[in-house]
Amino acid sequence: MSKRVKLKKPRLPKLPKLKRAHKKILNDIPGTLTYTGYKDQKHVTVELIDYSPENHKYEVFQDVSNAFNKQIPGDISWINVNGLSDIEQIEKLGQHYNLHPLILEDIVDTNQRPKIDEYPDYLFIVFKMLYYNEEGVFMNEHISLVVGENYLITFQEADGDVFDSLRQRIANAKGRVRNAGSDYLMFAIMDAVVDHYFTLIEAMSDRIEDLEDVLFSNTADQDITQDIQELKREVLRLRKAVFPFREVVNRLEKIDSNLIDEKTISYIRDLYDHVTQVTDSIDIYREMTWGLMDMYMTTISNKMNEVMKVLTIMASIFIPLTFMAGIYGMNFEYIPELQMQYGYFYLWGAMILVFLGLLYYFKRKKWL
Amino acid sequence: MSKRVKLKKPRLPKLPKLKRAHKKILNDIPGTLTYTGYKDQKHVTVELIDYSPENHKYEVFQDVSNAFNKQIPGDISWINVNGLSDIEQIEKLGQHYNLHPLILEDIVDTNQRPKIDEYPDYLFIVFKMLYYNEEGVFMNEHISLVVGENYLITFQEADGDVFDSLRQRIANAKGRVRNAGSDYLMFAIMDAVVDHYFTLIEAMSDRIEDLEDVLFSNTADQDITQDIQELKREVLRLRKAVFPFREVVNRLEKIDSNLIDEKTISYIRDLYDHVTQVTDSIDIYREMTWGLMDMYMTTISNKMNEVMKVLTIMASIFIPLTFMAGIYGMNFEYIPELQMQYGYFYLWGAMILVFLGLLYYFKRKKWL
Amino acid sequence: MSKRVKLKKPRLPKLPKLKRAHKKILNDIPGTLTYTGYKDQKHVTVELIDYSPENHKYEVFQDVSNAFNKQIPGDISWINVNGLSDIEQIEKLGQHYNLHPLILEDIVDTNQRPKIDEYPDYLFIVFKMLYYNEEGVFMNEHISLVVGENYLITFQEADGDVFDSLRQRIANAKGRVRNAGSDYLMFAIMDAVVDHYFTLIEAMSDRIEDLEDVLFSNTADQDITQDIQELKREVLRLRKAVFPFREVVNRLEKIDSNLIDEKTISYIRDLYDHVTQVTDSIDIYREMTWGLMDMYMTTISNKMNEVMKVLTIMASIFIPLTFMAGIYGMNFEYIPELQMQYGYFYLWGAMILVFLGLLYYFKRKKWL
Amino acid sequence: MSKRVKLKKPRLPKLPKLKRAHKKILNDIPGTLTYTGYKDQKHVTVELIDYSPENHKYEVFQDVSNAFNKQIPGDISWINVNGLSDIEQIEKLGQHYNLHPLILEDIVDTNQRPKIDEYPDYLFIVFKMLYYNEEGVFMNEHISLVVGENYLITFQEADGDVFDSLRQRIANAKGRVRNAGSDYLMFAIMDAVVDHYFTLIEAMSDRIEDLEDVLFSNTADQDITQDIQELKREVLRLRKAVFPFREVVNRLEKIDSNLIDEKTISYIRDLYDHVTQVTDSIDIYREMTWGLMDMYMTTISNKMNEVMKVLTIMASIFIPLTFMAGIYGMNFEYIPELQMQYGYFYLWGAMILVFLGLLYYFKRKKWL
Amino acid sequence: MSKRVKLKKPRLPKLPKLKRAHKKILNDIPGTLTYTGYKDQKHVTVELIDYSPENHKYEVFQDVSNAFNKQIPGDISWINVNGLSDIEQIEKLGQHYNLHPLILEDIVDTNQRPKIDEYPDYLFIVFKMLYYNEEGVFMNEHISLVVGENYLITFQEADGDVFDSLRQRIANAKGRVRNAGSDYLMFAIMDAVVDHYFTLIEAMSDRIEDLEDVLFSNTADQDITQDIQELKREVLRLRKAVFPFREVVNRLEKIDSNLIDEKTISYIRDLYDHVTQVTDSIDIYREMTWGLMDMYMTTISNKMNEVMKVLTIMASIFIPLTFMAGIYGMNFEYIPELQMQYGYFYLWGAMILVFLGLLYYFKRKKWL
Ligand SMILES: [Mg+2]
Ligand SMILES: [Mg+2]
Ligand SMILES: [Mg+2]
Ligand SMILES: [Mg+2]
Ligand SMILES: [Mg+2]
Ligand SMILES: [Mg+2]
Ligand SMILES: [Mg+2]
Ligand SMILES: [Mg+2]
Ligand SMILES: [Mg+2]
Ligand SMILES: [Mg+2]
Ligand SMILES: [Mg+2]
Ligand SMILES: [Mg+2]
Ligand SMILES: [Mg+2]
Ligand SMILES: [Mg+2]
Ligand SMILES: [Mg+2]
Ligand SMILES: [Mg+2]
Ligand SMILES: [Mg+2]
Ligand SMILES: [Mg+2]
Ligand SMILES: [Mg+2]
Ligand SMILES: [Mg+2]
Ligand SMILES: [Mg+2]
Ligand SMILES: [Mg+2]
Ligand SMILES: [Mg+2]
Ligand SMILES: [Mg+2]
Ligand SMILES: [Mg+2]
Ligand SMILES: [Mg+2]
Ligand SMILES: [Mg+2]
Ligand SMILES: [Mg+2]
Ligand SMILES: [Mg+2]
Ligand SMILES: [Mg+2]
Ligand SMILES: [Mg+2]
Repeated sequence: MSKRVKLKKPRLPKLPKLKRAHKKILNDIPGTLTYTGYKDQKHVTVELIDYSPENHKYEVFQDVSNAFNKQIPGDISWINVNGLSDIEQIEKLGQHYNLHPLILEDIVDTNQRPKIDEYPDYLFIVFKMLYYNEEGVFMNEHISLVVGENYLITFQEADGDVFDSLRQRIANAKGRVRNAGSDYLMFAIMDAVVDHYFTLIEAMSDRIEDLEDVLFSNTADQDITQDIQELKREVLRLRKAVFPFREVVNRLEKIDSNLIDEKTISYIRDLYDHVTQVTDSIDIYREMTWGLMDMYMTTISNKMNEVMKVLTIMASIFIPLTFMAGIYGMNFEYIPELQMQYGYFYLWGAMILVFLGLLYYFKRKKWL
Repeated sequence: MSKRVKLKKPRLPKLPKLKRAHKKILNDIPGTLTYTGYKDQKHVTVELIDYSPENHKYEVFQDVSNAFNKQIPGDISWINVNGLSDIEQIEKLGQHYNLHPLILEDIVDTNQRPKIDEYPDYLFIVFKMLYYNEEGVFMNEHISLVVGENYLITFQEADGDVFDSLRQRIANAKGRVRNAGSDYLMFAIMDAVVDHYFTLIEAMSDRIEDLEDVLFSNTADQDITQDIQELKREVLRLRKAVFPFREVVNRLEKIDSNLIDEKTISYIRDLYDHVTQVTDSIDIYREMTWGLMDMYMTTISNKMNEVMKVLTIMASIFIPLTFMAGIYGMNFEYIPELQMQYGYFYLWGAMILVFLGLLYYFKRKKWL
Repeated sequence: MSKRVKLKKPRLPKLPKLKRAHKKILNDIPGTLTYTGYKDQKHVTVELIDYSPENHKYEVFQDVSNAFNKQIPGDISWINVNGLSDIEQIEKLGQHYNLHPLILEDIVDTNQRPKIDEYPDYLFIVFKMLYYNEEGVFMNEHISLVVGENYLITFQEADGDVFDSLRQRIANAKGRVRNAGSDYLMFAIMDAVVDHYFTLIEAMSDRIEDLEDVLFSNTADQDITQDIQELKREVLRLRKAVFPFREVVNRLEKIDSNLIDEKTISYIRDLYDHVTQVTDSIDIYREMTWGLMDMYMTTISNKMNEVMKVLTIMASIFIPLTFMAGIYGMNFEYIPELQMQYGYFYLWGAMILVFLGLLYYFKRKKWL
Repeated sequence: MSKRVKLKKPRLPKLPKLKRAHKKILNDIPGTLTYTGYKDQKHVTVELIDYSPENHKYEVFQDVSNAFNKQIPGDISWINVNGLSDIEQIEKLGQHYNLHPLILEDIVDTNQRPKIDEYPDYLFIVFKMLYYNEEGVFMNEHISLVVGENYLITFQEADGDVFDSLRQRIANAKGRVRNAGSDYLMFAIMDAVVDHYFTLIEAMSDRIEDLEDVLFSNTADQDITQDIQELKREVLRLRKAVFPFREVVNRLEKIDSNLIDEKTISYIRDLYDHVTQVTDSIDIYREMTWGLMDMYMTTISNKMNEVMKVLTIMASIFIPLTFMAGIYGMNFEYIPELQMQYGYFYLWGAMILVFLGLLYYFKRKKWL
Repeated sequence: MSKRVKLKKPRLPKLPKLKRAHKKILNDIPGTLTYTGYKDQKHVTVELIDYSPENHKYEVFQDVSNAFNKQIPGDISWINVNGLSDIEQIEKLGQHYNLHPLILEDIVDTNQRPKIDEYPDYLFIVFKMLYYNEEGVFMNEHISLVVGENYLITFQEADGDVFDSLRQRIANAKGRVRNAGSDYLMFAIMDAVVDHYFTLIEAMSDRIEDLEDVLFSNTADQDITQDIQELKREVLRLRKAVFPFREVVNRLEKIDSNLIDEKTISYIRDLYDHVTQVTDSIDIYREMTWGLMDMYMTTISNKMNEVMKVLTIMASIFIPLTFMAGIYGMNFEYIPELQMQYGYFYLWGAMILVFLGLLYYFKRKKWL
């Protein structure tokens, strides 16, 4: 049987399988916090970045309550929580910022799809952070964001994220971020996330090209059905992560909230342009991927055609010749040809004629 | 012929076939109650759960009228009717709570699709309860719900449901339920139903993986056409049950009714998130299932290719050799080669050369 | 060649082919009445059912004008016209009830798709009555309905319909009909029509199952391409009849007309539920039908695979053996093996080894 | 190789290929008139039909300006221009009726898709006139229409149209046309065009049936791939002509223009019904056509299956028998069976048994 | 293996691959200008066309600031910037015309999809200029346009464009352009771009026809899978460039901006007609392209069928004849037929009968 393909280029690391949700949500009281995220993230780390046009402070804690009395009035505070397994920490934050129990539930439910909920004092946004971390490992993190008047809280499943460049811009007062409000910080975070979607799009494009290369190279009988099926699955999962997020950004652009400054709207519109570029690409790769199976099918059929031609040519030439030889292998008492002096050579002549005739026939049919 | 697959993992029990509706509805007076549900559910059981922040009462009756005078004023009453075959019981309830004849008809018509009807004094909601019962049997129950100011009635086809955890929460005063109104109870019931949809989604995911495993394992010639067709049918039926229910939840979120408290709306929105997660997954599995047939087709073709190669190689090698042997089996009086002393061995030499040449040819073509 | 299937279960009688419309409408003056219906319906029959809560009268005439002066003031009159071939009769009715010429044209144009037109004094509704008549013949009748303040006129292509149960309910004063207006009568007529759509849905479901049974039974080589194609055509035609009718019912539910009583709206909503159940089912059967062709294709390929395996096994085993026998059928003067005493038996031994080796090879490949 | 089909029934004449537009529009000043229509239409003919309830006049000219001073005040004037190659004529009309340069451009641009433009004093409508002319030749004409208060101008690519019946109705004062305004004339013209769409629908239906007949008849190996591809192309082109025209009629029904009389709206709605019937049919034929290719594929596979069976049966029966004969053609010195008196007949017996055994095997497999 | 096709007609030059966007946008400050365009365009050229009904001036500079003080008050200034690699130049323009940093970012980001942004003082439009340049090389240029009260700036990736005819119209005062405002100039630019889309549509149509010709000609075994896949990719990319541009034109038609004169709206509507013609054609070619793969598959199967027939006929005729000869090659002591005087000739007679019988059989089956 044909073997699996060994693809040469680096491939898109497989996205983790859809996690089983029911263990969590079955028979739960609505508003109950149940952690469904990465198993190896045991501890919680809390970062506080406090800034104003003039000031900047960066601190790391193991307990969220440390962050509460460190905020400087009038500044913007970005509290970033890495790790969702310690429910107590999340609940403390919830109490301090007066967050609805359903929000807390969604923060730790990694199956929650991207969405935006408007509350009077804050906006709550859920999305997926997809990126290759510094060791080149593919990460698919559930991320939630609460943005209030002068604070912003992000919740991540695990350590490591795509915000290092943003942290430096805040530290070094580069760009608009130090002079703008928490709404611009919200934009900058989402912008960094969307920028990293493009790396996935590229990896997917490479992978489709790899499979096409396998299809168009005739050197080996590789079975790529399984690869195509996996690619389909990943395109569908990428869609599932990005398309609802586009709706989130779209609604954010049209929202009527005094949390969002007029000037920030241009930036959100720009973000929407970029997410749309991602979704456009996903749809193109989707169509290309679905077409791969049909292409593979014709490739198989073309190969079978070739196999059949070899068989047909070999059999069609040698079966009649064998019959001719069989005739003169018979033991009839009286077979006049057998007694002719050059009978054997005449037969060879006849066989060569038949052979050439059949060769010509297959040549004319372009089978040779 | 190839045999049916024996799948190793437990599989999704088949959903019952679409029930024949016309026996019921043909030539009926609109508003006539005709039971179309499970045949083995002969009796009707009525549960009354009466609760307020302070009180809680649980009683079971065989006749609905027993429930009417047991309600404590100011409490919330949840009347749960198990079994729809006793039309009279349904009608008694209808009279007591002043329900429209068309509602009663829909309660007992198990073919009714999920929907919501608004009436001035109550809301009427129909949906499907899909779950594995305690014996692991798959249940697909028609369920209706009437919610009024301080009461809520549920109608189920048969005993057994997914509300045991909710009953305990009411009994033990856990969560919000004892302190909230009938609208929150309505949410809690629908939430329990949706939580169980996830178990089906998981079973479906397992089944698709099983079929993929069969496809990618080359050990046996199993005919999975029938399995794929059944899977398609079930995906379509699941869609039929869940998608209209999503619309019901969506309309519930936007409804302008004084039966629904402002605070409950957040919970309904949360419910909508969960149903949407279910429908997103169904659509992904739908695409995966439809793709299985194409995958199976290429798998068959790949196998046929392999069969043809074996035939072609065997025939292409031995037919010419047989011809060569046939030549020297002829009885011509004068065949010079036959008289050569080592003619037989020379021929073997020639035959081995032809054999090796053909082997090399097939090797180079990667058919070996 | 493979033969057509003989299906065992009774099948859905084929819907009549799409009628040719242009003979009628080509070069006609708009508003011209041209009959395009069943050819064997030559006469026209007019039924008058006149009723009020107290009275009930049933009469049959050969001329519509007989019906005009038989109406009792204050009653509801249902005039049912069977047969559209007598244009004059239709025009008399049109004059008496002041109907627009375009309505009269649509009444007799059996190609008109389902629709609703609102006029100040009446509503005009077109739909298709699909049913099996009392002799089990499938009927696809064009039916139109005009409903005014206290009258309702139905126009049918031919004798026989699905309203007998309704007529009895009127005669026996069962249900709401005698106490309600012409709007409820309109609902009751449409309800009877929709109830009969379910019989078609069932017949279609049976037929798909029949075809699946043929596909999954391996006993015969039946060519079901044609059956699948016919099934597709019928699914498409059913869609064409039912989907626009659903829009008609939907608009009827939302219409702002003083002809429709507030109480009747609940019944129309119930009707809409039922039509939606029909359209949901049609869409499921549509997907199943479209999938049948792919399934059939894999079935054919599976069969071919099996045929090829038999050929490959037979040829791969006996061609080498024949070659071996051929070797010792040669007439070389010196073939040492031929002179060995047990040479013949040694060869048999070798041939049996080759035979068993090939058997083992095919066994290991699971081809046996 | 298989030959092209010779279809017996008359077929839909092929629609002309999509015309190349860029020669016209590339680097043109917007508003420039460039003729892109039929090459053999050299001259321009202008018809003037002037009518009122009392009067009727019909005249033909070679120059449009002749028509201007022939109009009787208070009458309706229908100016029909056959031939668009003489740009000057179109411009004269444009000046007299004060038409926008972009309208004149669209009139002569035969690639313009169906559309409606509203101007304060007139409506401008573009559509396609599809019909078989009197010699049975298929015509696909670009037609534009300008309708003002008391005049209507039509522009056609070539002589010959579908309006003869309408001209007679005007001449003979049949129907509403003489008593109605230019808006009713506009409707009557579009109605005649739509009536002729039905002839194409019918021709398409015939052609699909022809191809199905070829598919289901097993008499010949006709390659219908090309026919199916052409049919697809034509379905797509028909859609391109009719679907935007449906939008034109739809907008005409809802337009708020004092050029359109209230009474005419009913007629436009009737027209919309008819265009919708055409588009419904196109969508059905579209699905049927797309299904033909899959059907053809299964037909080919079925045929190959049959070919393979014949090969397998012949080879599986005669290869073992030939082997048996080969055994006793060997020249071993000691082959005991050869010396048996009835050895030859015993062998025949064995061969007949093998033959019957294989026959039985293939019979049981239903291959015979 | 089958070789790639050598197509005879000139083909659509391949569109450049999707450019990798993330190098640019990853970890950037929003509003940062990063050039992602053609690498060989090193310099920047600035054209200034200044015109009024009376005056016209044309100048070329190497630095944008030269253009600023050359404008004549009251005139319309068209500043065309060729080359985006010199970020400084773009920023100078941005400062002079007070453009938002996000606009500058989009101008140099060649991955930006077509869009329109409204700002109080100007409109910002992005689209793609697709054309064959004067050397016949296919160009896919990112182009941006800023239109203000009396100025218009265009930004192109490289030298060479489709505006030469427009420049001449301005120079020679042909058409409306010299007498109209910057809004008409904007229209004229977009109109020239759309006119060139038609050349691509044509090239695509030619290419589909070429592939169909290859499919329908049976002379060679060309593998066109790869060509079809590339065609699909290009159709998808063309869609990606043109469909969002249609939305831009649509929004421009409905925009409420005092920059756009009432009279220009008619021209924009005309432009919309033309873009829609392009998108209609793309959708038709899309369906045709997707159908090519299915067509190719049936073509392969037809060819395999033919191969199999040749094999089956040759094998079915000669295998039984060889068996007959084998019978009389046996060495049994007593084979009565061998001793008959004309036994050999009787056998020939029998073999000819078998041969003719099989020929007749295959003839009747239409395999010959
Ligand atoms: Mg829950
Ligand atoms: Mg959740
Ligand atoms: Mg993280
Ligand atoms: Mg960005
Ligand atoms: Mg941007
Ligand atoms: Mg009923
Ligand atoms: Mg019902
Ligand atoms: Mg139950
Ligand atoms: Mg829940
Ligand atoms: Mg939630
Ligand atoms: Mg497919
Ligand atoms: Mg007509
Ligand atoms: Mg009609
Ligand atoms: Mg009837
Ligand atoms: Mg009903
Ligand atoms: Mg109901
Ligand atoms: Mg398919
Ligand atoms: Mg132009
Ligand atoms: Mg044009
Ligand atoms: Mg004409
Ligand atoms: Mg008409
Ligand atoms: Mg009509
Ligand atoms: Mg297909
Ligand atoms: Mg297919
Ligand atoms: Mg390319
Ligand atoms: Mg950025
Ligand atoms: Mg950008
Ligand atoms: Mg350029
Ligand atoms: Mg143009
Ligand atoms: Mg135009
Ligand atoms: Mg396909």
